Amino acid sequence: MQVLIVHCHPEPRSFNAALTNIAVETLEGLGHRVEVADLYAEGFDPVERPTHFRARRDGNYFAPLDEQRHAVESGGLPEDVQGEIARLERADLVILQFPLWWHAQPAMLKGWFDRVFVYGGLYSGSRRYDRGVLRGKRVLCSVTTGSPAPAFSRDGRGGDIATLMWPIHCSLYYVGLEVLPPQLSYGIQGGGLSYQSEARFREQLEADKARWANRLQALDQEEPLAFSGWNDWDDDGVLKPEHPARWRP
Amino acid sequence: MQVLIVHCHPEPRSFNAALTNIAVETLEGLGHRVEVADLYAEGFDPVERPTHFRARRDGNYFAPLDEQRHAVESGGLPEDVQGEIARLERADLVILQFPLWWHAQPAMLKGWFDRVFVYGGLYSGSRRYDRGVLRGKRVLCSVTTGSPAPAFSRDGRGGDIATLMWPIHCSLYYVGLEVLPPQLSYGIQGGGLSYQSEARFREQLEADKARWANRLQALDQEEPLAFSGWNDWDDDGVLKPEHPARWRP
Repeated sequence: MQVLIVHCHPEPRSFNAALTNIAVETLEGLGHRVEVADLYAEGFDPVERPTHFRARRDGNYFAPLDEQRHAVESGGLPEDVQGEIARLERADLVILQFPLWWHAQPAMLKGWFDRVFVYGGLYSGSRRYDRGVLRGKRVLCSVTTGSPAPAFSRDGRGGDIATLMWPIHCSLYYVGLEVLPPQLSYGIQGGGLSYQSEARFREQLEADKARWANRLQALDQEEPLAFSGWNDWDDDGVLKPEHPARWRP
Repeated sequence: MQVLIVHCHPEPRSFNAALTNIAVETLEGLGHRVEVADLYAEGFDPVERPTHFRARRDGNYFAPLDEQRHAVESGGLPEDVQGEIARLERADLVILQFPLWWHAQPAMLKGWFDRVFVYGGLYSGSRRYDRGVLRGKRVLCSVTTGSPAPAFSRDGRGGDIATLMWPIHCSLYYVGLEVLPPQLSYGIQGGGLSYQSEARFREQLEADKARWANRLQALDQEEPLAFSGWNDWDDDGVLKPEHPARWRP
């Protein structure tokens, strides 16, 4: 199996980096090939903007989706985007490793969605959801949070984690990926050690690494989240009354 | 009233730009002062990273929240972040104008949250939610979507819009802002006119501009979304059994 880990954290010795490292070690130990897209280290530009497109479809009006499709069709996609798409195409399993910042992925990773999931390439009107371009591949978000688990429970003040993950999971499913339940490491406070003692931080790190490595060894037995699909929707994209809603928060 | 519009779109003649322009015109016509933070035009850098901090608390390990707090305490916040915070402090009402890209705000605006809502400045452990630093100010997201409204209904394939807005609304409430219901302009396809006829695009633009201007004239009579608050939560940040959950998706 070919695995792509899209890693998003600015500190090379962070808790997130440790989780990526143990994932590489575990997956390679199982005989898989692993590629890491280290967005910060590689200097990925997360901002979708006109200057990425050399041969514009319309030089006077920047419509991002139109330029994306034109770039796909004319072979003019930005080199970094081409590289990320090639990584996705090679992968059987994609892992997104990131901290939850402001109830979502960091801007660096949000922009990876904005720029890499190109219209006319990774999706079109007829190639989305369970007919998506990347169907057959699986994806899993491994997420660290600052607050402890209770804050992210259904009635927690941080917001129900399933609800917070919903926009991200919707986007991954949109391009056809099968979405596995997220791996959650709660209550990680910086590693700058201003809140937690060094000993407490190391203890949690070892526990969360072990839990992650353990899960990765049996990933092939997991079932993806059950989203609704084309057969469930009417022409307006709304669930038919006779089709029960499947997974959603 | 002082109004801050945080505007996020790369095309100066976009549908989003037209909504910002009509908001400026309407609000100034009512006698308010309006400031526009045009993130793309101003070249805002949405990526939180070590190089923003000149005098690091810890030069060997980049813990974003620790560096933010240290920068607040030592007067070393990045200049652009200081500028954005000053804009927020001046404002009575904040409007975020953006297109929904991949079920959330564009990376450019996500990074405005990541970098501007600094720990130790715009919030701390004891100054959050209804005890937040920015309490007394109101905020409203004005959002355009590519797909039509039915896709964003409760059972729509695009995802229930209230659920998609939840992470953003949670973040705004976290710093103490009173969150008004979003202004939604559905089914806006690029303006590159590849999907819609020019006439259809103009027609919708005029209708959505009028609807937006109309709402802005009576904004002071609107009630914010009713989130839970400190008095509703136990020590773990979980809703007390006797306190009914208030607004959430």
